Amino acid sequence: VDDGSGLPNSVEWVAGSIRLLDQRTLPGTVTYLDITTVGGLCDAIESLAVRGAPALGAAGAFGVAMVASQFGDQASVRSEAERIASARPTAVNLRWGVDIALAAYERGGGHAALAAAQQLAAADIAANRAIGEHGLAVIPRREGGARVLTHCNAGHLATVGYGTAIGIVRAGFDAGLVAHVYVDETRPLLQGARLTAWECRALGIPATLIIDSAAGSHMARGLVDMVVVGADRIAANGDVANKIGTYSLAVLARYHHVPFVVAAPMSTVDAATASGADIEIEDRPGDEVRGVGSAATAPEAMTVSNPAFDVTPADLVTTIVTELGAFTPNELARHLVS
Amino acid sequence: VDDGSGLPNSVEWVAGSIRLLDQRTLPGTVTYLDITTVGGLCDAIESLAVRGAPALGAAGAFGVAMVASQFGDQASVRSEAERIASARPTAVNLRWGVDIALAAYERGGGHAALAAAQQLAAADIAANRAIGEHGLAVIPRREGGARVLTHCNAGHLATVGYGTAIGIVRAGFDAGLVAHVYVDETRPLLQGARLTAWECRALGIPATLIIDSAAGSHMARGLVDMVVVGADRIAANGDVANKIGTYSLAVLARYHHVPFVVAAPMSTVDAATASGADIEIEDRPGDEVRGVGSAATAPEAMTVSNPAFDVTPADLVTTIVTELGAFTPNELARHLVS
Repeated sequence: VDDGSGLPNSVEWVAGSIRLLDQRTLPGTVTYLDITTVGGLCDAIESLAVRGAPALGAAGAFGVAMVASQFGDQASVRSEAERIASARPTAVNLRWGVDIALAAYERGGGHAALAAAQQLAAADIAANRAIGEHGLAVIPRREGGARVLTHCNAGHLATVGYGTAIGIVRAGFDAGLVAHVYVDETRPLLQGARLTAWECRALGIPATLIIDSAAGSHMARGLVDMVVVGADRIAANGDVANKIGTYSLAVLARYHHVPFVVAAPMSTVDAATASGADIEIEDRPGDEVRGVGSAATAPEAMTVSNPAFDVTPADLVTTIVTELGAFTPNELARHLVS
Repeated sequence: VDDGSGLPNSVEWVAGSIRLLDQRTLPGTVTYLDITTVGGLCDAIESLAVRGAPALGAAGAFGVAMVASQFGDQASVRSEAERIASARPTAVNLRWGVDIALAAYERGGGHAALAAAQQLAAADIAANRAIGEHGLAVIPRREGGARVLTHCNAGHLATVGYGTAIGIVRAGFDAGLVAHVYVDETRPLLQGARLTAWECRALGIPATLIIDSAAGSHMARGLVDMVVVGADRIAANGDVANKIGTYSLAVLARYHHVPFVVAAPMSTVDAATASGADIEIEDRPGDEVRGVGSAATAPEAMTVSNPAFDVTPADLVTTIVTELGAFTPNELARHLVS
């Protein structure tokens, strides 16, 4: 299963190992990591070689399939699976992917775990295509096409393929509804500049890169018709945890009367998390902010606050698009209860 | 004249040349540039070896003094002065400094130009100290001291000495009213990370560095009591042009009911500019966004929008603090007319 873009899937199972499109070396070099150990997988997750909530779900599921092929006893499989699920605390999809493959393993062994992981990966691409289709309805109609702003990378690379937020952009571009993408560079790790910009070029979608703090003035100049982002976790009340900077965009979008759209598969919705206040926010190393790559840009001992995510309250979110349709946060919350 | 911090002044006249504290090599190395030609001065201004509206005013004035010492005829002095004044379009202080020294030259020759420049530099430090004193009244009173967020560098380095926004922080810290500073790193050129962080450490003021897009979530968490920034130009109606990202902060501050304070000498107020719509915004090279220093972080040919400044409408500004006092934008506008 591929997403039709010509790009290799971000997460694939290749002869007993997990092949990841290494997101750390983009856009300079396209390299692949063949993962054969749990330690290697946890390193890849922690160092963001694989990232993005849906891609992490697939990586977690394939991780359990790999563990099941290596360990004979159920206790080891379970504890290794837990190691994988804990590698990043905020992305609920990672644990979800692990849980699905682990349940399949406990019912039917290693073959069942692998089959579940394969199905999860294929279903991810299908869900993202559905998100793209449902998203068409929320793109503001504008002569010549809408100008859409996005943050971080919720594209092909953040998923097994096709993308969530960028899935809507792709579907909208193909339908003539989207003309242009503004890409926030997304400090500190520059997923927008490195990954989303690269994807837009690979897909032939006109795009302009801006620094994160320029989003507001581009909105004020009337250049942005819609903001669309992914999500790392959506609480039961519709609060959205996503890459740091998402919350600022939501406030800016509200102020400028620009629709603020979240695109995510239902696996991102965590019914067990009542609201954003219950979401653990990962703090990442200060060196990510004290420099870029290996270059230091701030005084060595400078104190840093580096939360990886922020929480956007449901009342700032116009629409949440999932594979089941486009919902207001309230409608999505009711959907969970019913 | 110095500002009492122990730091060398950012712009000084040394035996016929202009000595600049080179802002491009900080925080790694403290180096000085001795400028002896107009070409060298324009390069230093364009490459941001010297930057910050008040520092540019002094650099412009000393530039005319240097020109007057090198050229015998008035026509050459005038045309060289115009070259200096045009090196950066948004900062009104640069032209103001040039004009003051040029007027002195036309009245009294090279000696008069130098005396005017020296006086302007000394007056800058005095004005910034006055801004700091007037700013004390606008710092929110909080048990243990206020937490202040700033953007870019409106400190010692952006002025001849003492700073404008950081002048208020300094005065507030010395008075026990300011406890902590959040420093936006300020992409693309990282003046916050490189310069403001360095200054806060040099001054012993507790400070935490954050990425620009984390300002909103820090406000949402109740960690920010006031935003204070400098200005590159203030229009007659109180609209403020300042480093890109300032506008977003102003919108976020409004949303979170946090006072948004602009600190600038009266020389930054341009009565000839009716409103922000009349301010020319400098577009800077895309490579500043496609990379950091010499490291590329985005696809090579990526399209970039890189405005150096944005305009914050007067209605988002709580207070403008100048050497004459603390004003609402409306009061400042009336002050100009009277």
